[in-house]
Amino acid sequence: MERTLISDTPKKVGEPVRLEGWVNTVRDHGKITFLDLRDRTGIVQCVGTALPKVSPESVVEIAGKVTRRPEKLINPNLETGKIEIQIENLKVISPAAELPFDMGQEDLNLDLPILLDYRSLTLRHKKQQAIFKVQAVIIEAFRDALRKKDFIEFQAPSIISAVPEGGAEVFKVDYFDHDAYLSQSPQLYKSLLVGIFERVFSVNQIFRAEPSVTTRHLTEVTSLDAEFGFIDSWKDVIEMEEYVVRYIFSEVEKKCAKELSLFNATLPKLPDQIPLLKLKEAQEIIYKRTGRDVRTEKDLAPEDEREICKWSLEEKGSDLIFISHFVTKKKPFYVYPDPEDPTYAFSVDLLGRGVEWSSGGQRLNDYKTILEHVKEWGLKEKDIELYLQSFRYGVPPLGGFALGAERVTMHILGLKNIREASIFPRDMERIDVRLSTLSEKESS
Amino acid sequence: MERTLISDTPKKVGEPVRLEGWVNTVRDHGKITFLDLRDRTGIVQCVGTALPKVSPESVVEIAGKVTRRPEKLINPNLETGKIEIQIENLKVISPAAELPFDMGQEDLNLDLPILLDYRSLTLRHKKQQAIFKVQAVIIEAFRDALRKKDFIEFQAPSIISAVPEGGAEVFKVDYFDHDAYLSQSPQLYKSLLVGIFERVFSVNQIFRAEPSVTTRHLTEVTSLDAEFGFIDSWKDVIEMEEYVVRYIFSEVEKKCAKELSLFNATLPKLPDQIPLLKLKEAQEIIYKRTGRDVRTEKDLAPEDEREICKWSLEEKGSDLIFISHFVTKKKPFYVYPDPEDPTYAFSVDLLGRGVEWSSGGQRLNDYKTILEHVKEWGLKEKDIELYLQSFRYGVPPLGGFALGAERVTMHILGLKNIREASIFPRDMERIDVRLSTLSEKESS
Repeated sequence: MERTLISDTPKKVGEPVRLEGWVNTVRDHGKITFLDLRDRTGIVQCVGTALPKVSPESVVEIAGKVTRRPEKLINPNLETGKIEIQIENLKVISPAAELPFDMGQEDLNLDLPILLDYRSLTLRHKKQQAIFKVQAVIIEAFRDALRKKDFIEFQAPSIISAVPEGGAEVFKVDYFDHDAYLSQSPQLYKSLLVGIFERVFSVNQIFRAEPSVTTRHLTEVTSLDAEFGFIDSWKDVIEMEEYVVRYIFSEVEKKCAKELSLFNATLPKLPDQIPLLKLKEAQEIIYKRTGRDVRTEKDLAPEDEREICKWSLEEKGSDLIFISHFVTKKKPFYVYPDPEDPTYAFSVDLLGRGVEWSSGGQRLNDYKTILEHVKEWGLKEKDIELYLQSFRYGVPPLGGFALGAERVTMHILGLKNIREASIFPRDMERIDVRLSTLSEKESS
Repeated sequence: MERTLISDTPKKVGEPVRLEGWVNTVRDHGKITFLDLRDRTGIVQCVGTALPKVSPESVVEIAGKVTRRPEKLINPNLETGKIEIQIENLKVISPAAELPFDMGQEDLNLDLPILLDYRSLTLRHKKQQAIFKVQAVIIEAFRDALRKKDFIEFQAPSIISAVPEGGAEVFKVDYFDHDAYLSQSPQLYKSLLVGIFERVFSVNQIFRAEPSVTTRHLTEVTSLDAEFGFIDSWKDVIEMEEYVVRYIFSEVEKKCAKELSLFNATLPKLPDQIPLLKLKEAQEIIYKRTGRDVRTEKDLAPEDEREICKWSLEEKGSDLIFISHFVTKKKPFYVYPDPEDPTYAFSVDLLGRGVEWSSGGQRLNDYKTILEHVKEWGLKEKDIELYLQSFRYGVPPLGGFALGAERVTMHILGLKNIREASIFPRDMERIDVRLSTLSEKESS
């Protein structure tokens, strides 16, 4: 008999079905056993007598009949809550070992290290699954939004031959007889490709040898990068980013209602237009609101980001806010200084719910000015040869932005730690397993 | 005035337009100048008098009027061939340096090293652009085909903590105080995720420290990976792969007619069903056709792959062919031995137009059998802890496959070298720039 997916069972009342899935929970009431079966489409209650013993998480095949539940046993919280399966035959396809903790709870309530030590098991919990369903929707929405605007996808390389911006937080790779590094950003590639395709985007892993353990940094993240040419001003970049972010939210709203409700999450609140402040304006506001005088600082500290987001929500009704005009010399060489005051640049961060979601802005496109910056920033031309080559042969005014997929996921769902928003998170203490444990084992 | 895209100019005969793009070619006829302008949507001829001198590839803005061409000057090979732009004003936005070679030819005809040394420039040629437009369509078609079958996308990590299958062709990464490596395949991740999502796919970079320079190997490639559970047999995997490949071809046919014609390329010929041979059957056929006795070999050599593809096309009318039942002990530990003869496994390669496009097959899902294989293959359990964990808690019968995006692109378009199918190809001699040159410069 063909397999029936659980989501299709309510349509088959009175019919025989063959189901396959995981035992989500088992409740043994003497002779009668209630068993919740889970597959990729949902959960359904199955009932049987004299069943073989079966442990939670085992993979089973159930042959049975779909019956309507008595009115008072209907479960309104379950999509299949009006029916149940009368088990005629249960076969264990792949038995599960005894679980180290109860997987049948509404919330897992595990410490983060345990959650990650048992990643292959804990991901089976519906709330963990939900995170990565939402993430898949976010990422595809990013691509889809940009394809609708004529952007073309490219595959950004991970291995690079030089680190144009200094190498403190870069991973080194043994590359035959040469040194190579892991890319911290596809920035130079996406910019040079504007000289070819006008509009490009990429979704790829980037790497930071972040030597500290925080709740918002990982050593490997998924970067959503976009870059485009023939802009009239840096404000075109903001406009495109706002379009993309709104598109992502609307897709998540459309496709992830169930997942959002599991987290009691609501999508970020947005007014007609996301507010925009210059760094200096933001610093002035923070000073006025808190008395902390940050007006001579060259960047926003984490508490400043939180404060300006609070302001944005209270005063503008917006969970997101753009901050522009960061200090030119604190930014990479390709940044475009504001001609009215070159101390500050047409660089733009998007903050959301207290933290940075993305950075972007207009980039230099004039070859001579780029060369001047390369010199001023103390870089070597040969380290960025392919980049310079593009601009040597004509590139239009351009700009772009990069969103971190994990950060967007984290702040849409209200997760506390970015590790929860990465399916296999890497930090200085963990690559799947805890590295210290690994070292101990190795040295013993 | 709003910018008009070149593809929209034929609709605006008689109207004033503002165009932006690159100077594709310039032909100076004394006082009158013909200039082909290129943007992301096409090419259009512009005509003007007393124009400022402008070099090919410069970025320009042209204000002018769309006029119909006289009947005998219509160019049927150009989508805008019935019109031209009367230039009223030409402004150089970003001038191009003198080109090292003529970019205006139908074919670039450059040696591969030169093509790659000037990657930022040569990618502007329409045939080079076409390769990566086709590749973008292939990759999105892969995703789309699988989403239609309920597969969920995940982001496979690149940094791994151990090399379960030995480390000859793996890149080592300095990871704080630990050793880490670049992933050669998301195989173990996608398999363990079948225990969670049933059906998963990923598109990500994989890495091979391939110590030789061939026309079909790169050190970094884009892998299109799919894996799914609750299969009834290994033939379900073949069926799913055939569906995906046909879907890719139909999308390329629909969306890339122009690009295919630039390469005089035709999509691979397929009968109702892609032929399937066991390794031994293929070897027998090769022996009969060529007299070369490869019947005791444990794998197909490149010339065997070419010969069996020839057979497939001649005898079955198929440019693609599945080969199954490779030698178990030559495959990774997770391979599923055929119970009827465990010397051979349910592993399947897809060959196309003379070379391997993908490998896949059914994988072990029984925990005890996996542990036996781990021991037999001489691996350490702790190196694949997360993988084993998944199977310890119940995973259904599963299988999957991986397609190389560059190989599919290369063989659809009939490219001679895989480097042409990678936008920024990496091999042991090149990461963007030639590494030997880089070393020379560094040591001087």
